[in-house]
Amino acid sequence: MKYLFVLLLAGVTAGAQVKKEQLNLMPWPQNVVINEGNFALNKNFRVNITGNPNPRIFGGVTRFLRRLDGRTGIFFEQGFITKLNEFPEATLQINCTKSGKIGLYEDESYHLDIKSNKITINASSDLGALHGLETLLQMLQNNSNSFYFPVSQISDFPRFTWRGLMIDASRHFQPVDVIKRNIDALAAMKMNVFHWHLVDDQGWRIEMKKHPRLIELASDGMYYTQEEIKNIVKYADQRGILIVPEIDVPGHGSAILTAYPEIGSKVITVTGGTSEKNIQGTAIATYGVERNAGIFSPTLDPSNPKTYQILSEIFDEVCPLFPGAYFHIGGDENEGKDWDANPKIQEFKKKHKLNTNHELQTYFTMQLAPMLKKHGKQLMGWEEILTKDLSKEAIVHSWRGPNEGVVAGQSLVNAVKKGYKTVLSNGFYIDLMYPVASHYLNDPMPKDATLTAEEKARILGGEATMWTELATPETIDSRVWPRTAAIAERLWSAEDVTDVANMRKRLETVSFRLEELGLTHIRNKAVILRNISNNQNFKSLNEFTNVCEPLKGYTRNKGGTEYQMYSPFTLFADACGPDAKDSLAFNDAVNEYLKSKTPENKVKVAAFFTKWIAVNKGLIELGSNAPLVQPILPLSKKLSDASQELLLVLDNKSTLKKEDLKALIEQCNTKDHADVELSVYESLKKLL
Amino acid sequence: MKYLFVLLLAGVTAGAQVKKEQLNLMPWPQNVVINEGNFALNKNFRVNITGNPNPRIFGGVTRFLRRLDGRTGIFFEQGFITKLNEFPEATLQINCTKSGKIGLYEDESYHLDIKSNKITINASSDLGALHGLETLLQMLQNNSNSFYFPVSQISDFPRFTWRGLMIDASRHFQPVDVIKRNIDALAAMKMNVFHWHLVDDQGWRIEMKKHPRLIELASDGMYYTQEEIKNIVKYADQRGILIVPEIDVPGHGSAILTAYPEIGSKVITVTGGTSEKNIQGTAIATYGVERNAGIFSPTLDPSNPKTYQILSEIFDEVCPLFPGAYFHIGGDENEGKDWDANPKIQEFKKKHKLNTNHELQTYFTMQLAPMLKKHGKQLMGWEEILTKDLSKEAIVHSWRGPNEGVVAGQSLVNAVKKGYKTVLSNGFYIDLMYPVASHYLNDPMPKDATLTAEEKARILGGEATMWTELATPETIDSRVWPRTAAIAERLWSAEDVTDVANMRKRLETVSFRLEELGLTHIRNKAVILRNISNNQNFKSLNEFTNVCEPLKGYTRNKGGTEYQMYSPFTLFADACGPDAKDSLAFNDAVNEYLKSKTPENKVKVAAFFTKWIAVNKGLIELGSNAPLVQPILPLSKKLSDASQELLLVLDNKSTLKKEDLKALIEQCNTKDHADVELSVYESLKKLL
Repeated sequence: MKYLFVLLLAGVTAGAQVKKEQLNLMPWPQNVVINEGNFALNKNFRVNITGNPNPRIFGGVTRFLRRLDGRTGIFFEQGFITKLNEFPEATLQINCTKSGKIGLYEDESYHLDIKSNKITINASSDLGALHGLETLLQMLQNNSNSFYFPVSQISDFPRFTWRGLMIDASRHFQPVDVIKRNIDALAAMKMNVFHWHLVDDQGWRIEMKKHPRLIELASDGMYYTQEEIKNIVKYADQRGILIVPEIDVPGHGSAILTAYPEIGSKVITVTGGTSEKNIQGTAIATYGVERNAGIFSPTLDPSNPKTYQILSEIFDEVCPLFPGAYFHIGGDENEGKDWDANPKIQEFKKKHKLNTNHELQTYFTMQLAPMLKKHGKQLMGWEEILTKDLSKEAIVHSWRGPNEGVVAGQSLVNAVKKGYKTVLSNGFYIDLMYPVASHYLNDPMPKDATLTAEEKARILGGEATMWTELATPETIDSRVWPRTAAIAERLWSAEDVTDVANMRKRLETVSFRLEELGLTHIRNKAVILRNISNNQNFKSLNEFTNVCEPLKGYTRNKGGTEYQMYSPFTLFADACGPDAKDSLAFNDAVNEYLKSKTPENKVKVAAFFTKWIAVNKGLIELGSNAPLVQPILPLSKKLSDASQELLLVLDNKSTLKKEDLKALIEQCNTKDHADVELSVYESLKKLL
Repeated sequence: MKYLFVLLLAGVTAGAQVKKEQLNLMPWPQNVVINEGNFALNKNFRVNITGNPNPRIFGGVTRFLRRLDGRTGIFFEQGFITKLNEFPEATLQINCTKSGKIGLYEDESYHLDIKSNKITINASSDLGALHGLETLLQMLQNNSNSFYFPVSQISDFPRFTWRGLMIDASRHFQPVDVIKRNIDALAAMKMNVFHWHLVDDQGWRIEMKKHPRLIELASDGMYYTQEEIKNIVKYADQRGILIVPEIDVPGHGSAILTAYPEIGSKVITVTGGTSEKNIQGTAIATYGVERNAGIFSPTLDPSNPKTYQILSEIFDEVCPLFPGAYFHIGGDENEGKDWDANPKIQEFKKKHKLNTNHELQTYFTMQLAPMLKKHGKQLMGWEEILTKDLSKEAIVHSWRGPNEGVVAGQSLVNAVKKGYKTVLSNGFYIDLMYPVASHYLNDPMPKDATLTAEEKARILGGEATMWTELATPETIDSRVWPRTAAIAERLWSAEDVTDVANMRKRLETVSFRLEELGLTHIRNKAVILRNISNNQNFKSLNEFTNVCEPLKGYTRNKGGTEYQMYSPFTLFADACGPDAKDSLAFNDAVNEYLKSKTPENKVKVAAFFTKWIAVNKGLIELGSNAPLVQPILPLSKKLSDASQELLLVLDNKSTLKKEDLKALIEQCNTKDHADVELSVYESLKKLL
């Protein structure tokens, strides 16, 4: 009798007891309690919604069901959910007190309670309930033949109210489907702001009905129609995401000035005429859409009334497309070269007692504030907008750091101390190919600054920025994800959730699951490798991506002119990513071996060398019918050469002089090949 | 001196001499001549356009450059092409006599002339030039370190004027990006018609401003906005593709009748009242969007004037979205059940002397013709529209065959003999998972029918039909491609281009290259396998897809109710495709072995068995942490069991009785597991 009872219980619990450490939740919730038992999933699983939620919850729950369907292959009977309280007996009950408002400071908390026969999500609004559904999806467990949720209670809320991702749609245009799938991923990671960088030197991307020249002359035909924008705004709203549009002025002006050169700042001195009659004067410069990467001088003329007239008309058309309360006007990297060289602008400065270009820019910015306020928008700009006369209503977007010659996050502290709200992006520049840990440990709340509670409250949160000089629609997902998930955790979870190894472990599952939203960060790698290998077996090529990382920071695309904005980026570096897969494992193996030179530890290190020698051979073979493999061969040869010698070193059979061995390894410290670097170089050095 | 000369020549020719048989052209051109020498590709490659082409050529050439860029990694300097005769010295010269018109009977011919220092494409219109560019892309060759085109002359034109693909966007809605990438693929395969099946029992997919109920009640929120439709029409036009929209009436009416039950044919007898007063009468039935697959009875009422009023208003709104000259009104699979049961409709038939439901349907169809003609559209319909009173202007779409109890293509012959133009889809039902060869050898021009030249001319061509009961946006590409490329060749190339082995060889490269257009037919397989394997190594699972094919014909989704239209289809069968990779190779190995039982031939057969035994072990291991692997295990066990025994048979060590061995192999002849069948069963049987 007892035996039967145990068997029955086993049937009910459906799987081994799950431990908290096994969960792959991200961002990690504020409070997780696991109890004994499981909720077993089957075809009759149903959802019921009660309370007063915004109707966005219906689509949210329908998508939740389809994702759970896709993962489990159960294919629930419940199809589309369109009504409140349709199935009072449903096993998943969602209750929301009120309708969630898209924007900052909204209560996004939720309580998820999984019992063995019933699951409940209680949230103050549908926004919290959507977060709860994402957590529930992440709670899914399985044994060999069934899926279940562990009995548990989770209480959760975000640490920061601004958890954003910026995508630059100007440099490489990113079509609607790229934006949509990334919005889905933001929602899955409980992020709530999508900052849409729509205008830069390299293109104007918004359909303009009253100023069609912007599209006709400055978009290369690649732009979002106003209907597409409205559609994306609605799509984001349904997923709890606020969209903050950006039109970057007065610098980064090449595209705008291609359409309207008359509001540019550059003056050209014209000399001409005949030998009898000299003509001298100034003329308006003409501009072209920029094809390279870099900081360029085309800048709007802040002394010209027509500048404000056009901008005002632009805002009148663009603002109504975005119901959110914030509008980003850029304001960064205006070097003022054209201002300095323009006598009319110099005169204007004097007349308005503006001592510096910085003050002139603030003057300019402050003209825009009422144009936006008219549409109910608060102005936001990159940190350069911050000067003494800036309205306290503006939000300062902190981005500069050591690369720009300033202390990281300095502007953030300055801003809050001066009474401005601020968002941190320095340290979250995901386009620069830095390792995930660097972003993960970058906290918007400065550790050493002494800030009052009021000042701290002005730190709204942070935002990952994805600039697209080097990213196409095919590669952008792999530049954004999975690292942005770690940033999401930094911005949502408690301050002390900082265990990098634990984050990395969870990130692997999170990354895999993001694919179900249509993201291409994993699948498109094979597409690039297939092309490089000319449709041959690309096993060696793939192995080599496990020790190669794209050049970091601003070291790829030298001078900004090696590649153009229309370059498709189908190279080896574009298949590689930061945090190359074998680096950590190899580093661990080396450390273990150096700690204790046992045969087992030696074998583990040697296995890498053997693999890399084979990879080099495989690549040479592949290259015989694949020109795109050629640029990689010198690098794989260097790693193979070092590996061969280090195998001898491990066996004490190397006859090389120490300096020659050092030179051999030093060859692996190079940025000369295929826009990548060997991620194992530092670990190799340890074996010297 | 002679030695130096030879070296120089080698430098110029850039690669070994290419033979015609090595080219992977598809559809195979009408005339190909290869000469000695090569055109070497480098960064200075430029294109120039002359003549009087439609501006669509500019985008076409820009896309051509980017695709060539992507393949070669050369990243040409030339960016966007926007003007005629911009670079008279360019190495690729394109000349078009006139602007191409989107539609049938347009001259699509081109001449491609590759010399060692210059390439020329001459075409009567930009449509031919676009085809020429696709051929040029397919001509790309490489050696180990460079890319080149072989010196050659190609003259080419299509055999049929209608080379189409239909996508059903009703059953599983297919978003804009799915449609766009498939249009790109059509253009790459020199196809010219996209037939858009927009309405069926399972959903209405067109935004309607005057009849918003259709969207509100019958789309589940999944539809194309009118702007999206216009945008897709423009996208198709730029690629030389005609769009033929379809609104399927009077059958397949569940979605329309969900919005407008009052024009439905079903009558319900109502009885009620009290014991003192009986009420009896008829009432209008209500309808719901259909969730299952099959043929359903909801049918529009042809006797109701309101039916024609609503349809007329619908056409008034939909026709202007599509500039093409053809409109498909469906007309298929109307069983007339609700007509028979409706006394009012029976009366109407008598009054109008319509003896059969077929005649009644023709009456209905003929009411629609003027509604369409008003907008300059010719009516097209599935073959059931063909009866004696049908206007000769209508185009008959031939689709039925043995599965529907008629001779394949019979309606096509009937139609042309009766004076109708016709398009063949029977034999091109790519959703049914039949092997590529069956479609490839299906010629729209009947072999045994005696047709006059005039009758033959009425056979416009053919159309692959992709019904989506079992295909989602994630899987549809793998159902359409690469097999539709073989259909493209049937419709474009000469009648005698029928070598299946040669087609298969070329198809492999064509399939790989289609990926550069964003198609997901290769990459998404890994996504499904990753999900099934729960993010574990899926090598065994992938190997198993090489011997498994989805159930063919209408045998998957029994009764149409096993899966619903909202089922996500993330199962093993959805990762498999027709023409499983190992089947042919295994069959060849078996045939060779049976012809000559040499040790070498034995080893080749045995290698497959050894692999399949290992695959089964791998799958069992995988299944210990992946519930979705479980349904596959019985099948892999059957193949493994048979393999183990057949290994013994090969070595004459089997002790099994003949009938037991037969039974073991017969176990592999099953449709009971995971919606797939073993593609190697027939070859296994040969070893008995």
